[in-house]
Amino acid sequence: MTMSSEPGERKGQVSIASIAAEAGVSIPTVSKVLNGRPHVAPDTRARVESVIEQHQYRRRRARQSSRPALIDLVFHEMHSAWATEIIRGVEQAAATQRAAVVLSELGGEHRPRREWFEDLLARRPLGVILVLAELDAEQRHQLTTRNIPFVLVDTAGEQPPGVPTVGSANWAGGLAATRHLLSLGHRRIAVISGPTDMLCSRARVDGYRSALEEASVAIAPDFVRYGDFYVHGGYSHGLDLLRRADRPTAIFAGSDFQALGVMRAARELGLSIPDDLSIVGYDDLPVTEWIGPPLTTVRQPLREMATTAAQMVFTLANGERPANERIDLATELIVRASTSAPRA
Amino acid sequence: MTMSSEPGERKGQVSIASIAAEAGVSIPTVSKVLNGRPHVAPDTRARVESVIEQHQYRRRRARQSSRPALIDLVFHEMHSAWATEIIRGVEQAAATQRAAVVLSELGGEHRPRREWFEDLLARRPLGVILVLAELDAEQRHQLTTRNIPFVLVDTAGEQPPGVPTVGSANWAGGLAATRHLLSLGHRRIAVISGPTDMLCSRARVDGYRSALEEASVAIAPDFVRYGDFYVHGGYSHGLDLLRRADRPTAIFAGSDFQALGVMRAARELGLSIPDDLSIVGYDDLPVTEWIGPPLTTVRQPLREMATTAAQMVFTLANGERPANERIDLATELIVRASTSAPRA
Repeated sequence: MTMSSEPGERKGQVSIASIAAEAGVSIPTVSKVLNGRPHVAPDTRARVESVIEQHQYRRRRARQSSRPALIDLVFHEMHSAWATEIIRGVEQAAATQRAAVVLSELGGEHRPRREWFEDLLARRPLGVILVLAELDAEQRHQLTTRNIPFVLVDTAGEQPPGVPTVGSANWAGGLAATRHLLSLGHRRIAVISGPTDMLCSRARVDGYRSALEEASVAIAPDFVRYGDFYVHGGYSHGLDLLRRADRPTAIFAGSDFQALGVMRAARELGLSIPDDLSIVGYDDLPVTEWIGPPLTTVRQPLREMATTAAQMVFTLANGERPANERIDLATELIVRASTSAPRA
Repeated sequence: MTMSSEPGERKGQVSIASIAAEAGVSIPTVSKVLNGRPHVAPDTRARVESVIEQHQYRRRRARQSSRPALIDLVFHEMHSAWATEIIRGVEQAAATQRAAVVLSELGGEHRPRREWFEDLLARRPLGVILVLAELDAEQRHQLTTRNIPFVLVDTAGEQPPGVPTVGSANWAGGLAATRHLLSLGHRRIAVISGPTDMLCSRARVDGYRSALEEASVAIAPDFVRYGDFYVHGGYSHGLDLLRRADRPTAIFAGSDFQALGVMRAARELGLSIPDDLSIVGYDDLPVTEWIGPPLTTVRQPLREMATTAAQMVFTLANGERPANERIDLATELIVRASTSAPRA
């Protein structure tokens, strides 16, 4: 049923013209829908999408595009040094492919708004990298039909099935942090992790539990806390934990920002670090090396995760499959001056 | 002499066809040069550019482009939280115009490489925002002939004539920081600024000098230091200053990163902040509020500077002139816990 019209359509594949005929619209209308252009009525758009879906139409990438290559990097929200590490990782990979990086922040929304998504389609990037941003099934489908691959930089531990993902070893990070504190002689160790609805929070806490179990140390009631990953979460849980008569001698924080909050809580209570309290952070942001005392932390290789995700996008955009589509990069304990043996 | 060929050329203006004729090349070749496309011999490109220059040709922006709008944001180098503030400022302004932000890092080079610049021309962005990145005269000219406006976010204090610029009040920042230390009773105040070849460094030091002068305090020899803006600069100058018998009781650092370095130097020498040493930073990065002790600093409104620069680009891209093309936003002293009266 090929009546053909667009260069670059696959042989044997349904053509744009036949999609138009079947949906009862003009060829330019189908083209507008494919390219994310405005001025198509919602129900027309839905009808065209459904015919596209039905025939599993896949637009072929134009080989000799006159446009320079773009790669889209999308953040749920950008947080200072944390985001910069990811941006630099993508920039580095993009430069080797002479692709430019389009950066978007969804302003705290996890799912992109329709307008933004239409513009994304219209830009026709080589591919999309998502950081804590989620696409719904329809959006994923629209990218697939436009042959725009997408890869998650997974800092959350969530890996939707079928989506190429670069994550890091959260459970192993929690294990290493806690083993380190145990080996220094700590027994009253608390953990402040991220939100319970993020798998990475739970994986890190489970690593903490496993380390305590293998050392046959019971977990004190109320020593496992969940909050957000920002400074305030560490600060308020820190104050609460450190005001107890049986306060912990060590706290494993779910992020370096949280660790900063715990440090402030300790300062306010007149506790010295590491003599009165050992602290381990998570992420290894550049600044942690320079604060007082320099922070022991679990290195989450954000930059490498981003570079790997970008390389995956380029491979997919080339019509090839990456060797592995779901990778966790290793985390690593970096020991600095915020941890020591507890006071006798 | 209009033979015309491209839609959107200005009436009475030389046409692409006549440029081609005069340069002795084909029309598509002129078009390639204008659009930054490859496969044009260097001397041909030069000849075409020279005819363009001679006739003051200006490409008109296509009104109804099918491409979504892009705005280019170019960093000399991205430094963690500092860059994020600027990125967020541009993102914010771009979102209101439904433009996407293309982010580039020149990897430490101040002047963009030719390849990168050709890709920029080919992207045809609404405009370009430069941060510590410089264009040479030819590159500036090429943007002008393509009708692509560019604006500097001027964190360096350098304002090349004729280039729209958003800076901040560096001299006033140095003055406010030093007045604050004087008002606390300090007399032995050192300054560690950025490189001497950056005007912002010199402006801040001049603000410092003026404050001391108005208080009739002599500047101790060797108390004015220049280095880079990074942690190591603050650390090594800090160690050197604080090891002296007549060590300063207060240090004004040229950046928050430098202040972190000074803090580390003080810790290593067993000096307590602010009791033994008061420190003022510069920039007010988000993290400075959370370190111990929270840092007194001069707020450089990086995010607002970036938003203002982006708005200027949109105004220029619209063919209008901004109300002011060279603006310095105010700096502001933020007093926290790293400064106090010197020990008696």
